[in-house]
Amino acid sequence: MEDIEFLERVVKRVMSSGILGNPKDLRNHSKVTEFVDPEDLKRKLDLEILDEPASNEELLGLCEDVMRYSVKTGHPMFLNQLYHGLDGYCVAGAWLTDVLNTSQSTYEISPVFTVMETFVIRHIINNFIGWDDGEGIFSPGGSVANMYAMFVARHKALPDVKTKGLRGFPQLVAFVSEDGHYSTTKTANWLGIGTDNLVIIKVDDRGRMVPEDLDRSCKEAKQQGKLPFYVCATAGSTVLGSFDPLHQIADICQKHDLWFHVDAAWGGTVLLSRSHRHLMDGVNRADSVTWDFHKMPGLSLYCSVFLTKWTGMLYECNSSCAEYLFQEDKHYDGAYDTGEKSVQCGRKVDVLKLYLAWRGRGQIGMEQLVNHAFNMAQYFFEKIKHTKGFKLVLPEFTNICFWYVPPSLQGKEHTPDFWDQLSTIAPKLKEKMTKQGTMMIAYQPLSSKSFPNFFRLIVHCLPSLSKEDMDFIVTELQRLAEDL
Amino acid sequence: MEDIEFLERVVKRVMSSGILGNPKDLRNHSKVTEFVDPEDLKRKLDLEILDEPASNEELLGLCEDVMRYSVKTGHPMFLNQLYHGLDGYCVAGAWLTDVLNTSQSTYEISPVFTVMETFVIRHIINNFIGWDDGEGIFSPGGSVANMYAMFVARHKALPDVKTKGLRGFPQLVAFVSEDGHYSTTKTANWLGIGTDNLVIIKVDDRGRMVPEDLDRSCKEAKQQGKLPFYVCATAGSTVLGSFDPLHQIADICQKHDLWFHVDAAWGGTVLLSRSHRHLMDGVNRADSVTWDFHKMPGLSLYCSVFLTKWTGMLYECNSSCAEYLFQEDKHYDGAYDTGEKSVQCGRKVDVLKLYLAWRGRGQIGMEQLVNHAFNMAQYFFEKIKHTKGFKLVLPEFTNICFWYVPPSLQGKEHTPDFWDQLSTIAPKLKEKMTKQGTMMIAYQPLSSKSFPNFFRLIVHCLPSLSKEDMDFIVTELQRLAEDL
Ligand SMILES: Cc1ncc(COP(=O)(O)O)c(C=O)c1O
Ligand SMILES: Cc1ncc(COP(=O)(O)O)c(C=O)c1O
Repeated sequence: MEDIEFLERVVKRVMSSGILGNPKDLRNHSKVTEFVDPEDLKRKLDLEILDEPASNEELLGLCEDVMRYSVKTGHPMFLNQLYHGLDGYCVAGAWLTDVLNTSQSTYEISPVFTVMETFVIRHIINNFIGWDDGEGIFSPGGSVANMYAMFVARHKALPDVKTKGLRGFPQLVAFVSEDGHYSTTKTANWLGIGTDNLVIIKVDDRGRMVPEDLDRSCKEAKQQGKLPFYVCATAGSTVLGSFDPLHQIADICQKHDLWFHVDAAWGGTVLLSRSHRHLMDGVNRADSVTWDFHKMPGLSLYCSVFLTKWTGMLYECNSSCAEYLFQEDKHYDGAYDTGEKSVQCGRKVDVLKLYLAWRGRGQIGMEQLVNHAFNMAQYFFEKIKHTKGFKLVLPEFTNICFWYVPPSLQGKEHTPDFWDQLSTIAPKLKEKMTKQGTMMIAYQPLSSKSFPNFFRLIVHCLPSLSKEDMDFIVTELQRLAEDL
Repeated sequence: MEDIEFLERVVKRVMSSGILGNPKDLRNHSKVTEFVDPEDLKRKLDLEILDEPASNEELLGLCEDVMRYSVKTGHPMFLNQLYHGLDGYCVAGAWLTDVLNTSQSTYEISPVFTVMETFVIRHIINNFIGWDDGEGIFSPGGSVANMYAMFVARHKALPDVKTKGLRGFPQLVAFVSEDGHYSTTKTANWLGIGTDNLVIIKVDDRGRMVPEDLDRSCKEAKQQGKLPFYVCATAGSTVLGSFDPLHQIADICQKHDLWFHVDAAWGGTVLLSRSHRHLMDGVNRADSVTWDFHKMPGLSLYCSVFLTKWTGMLYECNSSCAEYLFQEDKHYDGAYDTGEKSVQCGRKVDVLKLYLAWRGRGQIGMEQLVNHAFNMAQYFFEKIKHTKGFKLVLPEFTNICFWYVPPSLQGKEHTPDFWDQLSTIAPKLKEKMTKQGTMMIAYQPLSSKSFPNFFRLIVHCLPSLSKEDMDFIVTELQRLAEDL
């Protein structure tokens, strides 16, 4: 049992590594990242797979390198992505899941987890989405959940496509805003609808879909003899954190008989807070919703749900009657099997992580984490409003988008040349912060607004940041930009 | 840090639970499953999510129930699925992955794992598939990998479908055998091709695709003005374990200009053994391959690779130029980012599990496990040939398919009535073994051969079974069937 001995040693090492400990300690003792160039990293890691087994010593050495050169995504200064932090309850759930390694497909092999998944999905639907009925499924990421959405909508619009294919049917047309996530584009491609038939709807100055433009585009598609069938509204857009106006979009969907999907992969977590859930008013009118718990709440990948209010639809559009799994003469009620609702066959258990975190913190604890994240974002926003060098793009949700104007550009007129130069600043600062390993903040341009490169700072539930953390970000950016 | 304390206690409990220990001990001390009916289980598990946090005591109690009522998929007598066993190296990799929680999308956030994934995929391609060039991606399961295959093939056949959709193009037609996995049917549905346009090719008496029928069906589709584009051959079929004749299928694909995919989700692992890899002779002629390491080798879900010999294709058909992730002014070479090759956005790291297992056992160790599984399957097969009550369906690969004929039916003539009665035996035996928890073996009918319910016993690399284990299966079946 060499392998189990190895496992025990890895656990000991992980537990003492600080990665799982108090985020404050992690911040004091560790960099966010120890960046090395890809070619250098390849040389440092000795990856060759040999005929002979490696000793546990060798493997442990390798694990040290893996930890050393991996980005510490639980570090308070990892502000780079739509995920962050490490919830201990979640890690326990993840580890237990791996040891009980099974698939969600049938009750027979997954009794606890099929029951738990059904329970949690119902809990979300009844208490947070607000549908009377409905169903859902955990999916390997929000992108796949969004693909479920368009797929189910396609089936509802044209059920015969399942057997006959898209060819003989009117051209389907889907809609998403300029700031919607690119997974909708990928989906239009995969599902055979074509990216040209995904109409991109304008956003307003705060990044929210313009309902009038949706209405107009719908009419236009109809006039062209096409069949509009699907709208993806975004609740918490990837870059700006905007929430599309759900009620107004729901009205238009009703009028034109369109499937109304809400991509709340990023923003769904506001529903956990009584103070902030109003941002998603109208979500109860959606036909389907995507919500990633591996984003704001700090759970590990994957923890993503696809929900629809149309009970039975997932089965109807996915079932393929695999007789080797879903035998009809089982000794228990086959309705507990979930495999026929899925595009996957083996489906890893993702629910235990969420379940343990939710119970361990209680609903109140979850709410507090969300509220605190909003407060810290607000604190940061108020602070940079009055701080030299910070130029705000937009503060929405817990995304704070800003340019950093270095000393050499401060006070300059905003000419095209100024913007060109400013555009080079974020990449330079990013390189510096990454190489020094003190923090990581994402930057990107935004072509829908012709904005050159700006930073997007994201505040999550975990790790729970303090005002001192927020202050540090400001002074650290100033320090890094000193000579720019 | 209540959550970390909880995690520590869960780890202690898991380590002492026997689930991770010596499979022999597990067999002596634990049932495979402690079956309770779904409604009972719901009552036993107190799932309600409350406002207040649960104490760590309560949560630990819940975890006890989770462990108790979950199927022990690492138990030697879990012979039910195409996965089995627990590799300690893999568990270490899984646990480390969860703690370093990140996404494979960019080098920036996943330096070690993007490099490692690329390395492992190249290792597989060069040393086991036999292509000079090629690329691949880890995917959440073999079903999704098979979906990649048809998707990439569709793109190669009709690149403009990406933007224009399928509607204006000739009807695509795909092919798979009667015994191919149902994920190909799901794929034909999802990708908009339609399940009617997935032509089901006959299999021979050993469950292998009949090349002549493929050739004929291709011609027929062409005569109907359709566009045949894709063949999915199966290497290790789900039920019978058959290997389609790859060389002959490759010839036909060449002749008709079809994409040649090999679904080796189950059977790919034979490539690890010099004695058995001949079963997949011709795989080097494939355009793409699916291989699940979470099946035979005993790694936890997901550990599935999609491979294609067409370097650049994954990017070409998936890229959507998300400017917030794949900025062009990065301070390192963006070619190391893998996100644009994927249908997913956040993509969990699956490679570390495989990597550690492969290094920890060495290539020789992996090969020995495969050979041993074959040997045990062979032993079992020889044994039941001479044992009253066992009636063989087919022994292919490490799938052994058989009917168990109980005392009351032994020696009877094989009339339709005999078959009808025999068909009820497997479900009854399955219920008994599940309720007593002594073992789990899957049963299913096979409509392609009009076979009534029979058992499919699967031998995997892990846990490594002994002759005594195989003997136990025989006597246990006899015991369970005594009064039938
Ligand atoms: C031959 C074959 N292909 C594909 C799959 C799908 O694999 P997964 O369960 O990883 O989606 C299976 C699963 O049993 C299979 O047997
Ligand atoms: C708004 C939105 N939707 C969907 C996704 C996709 O989520 P995932 O990464 O889980 O696939 C993202 C990811 O960033 C997102 O921001």
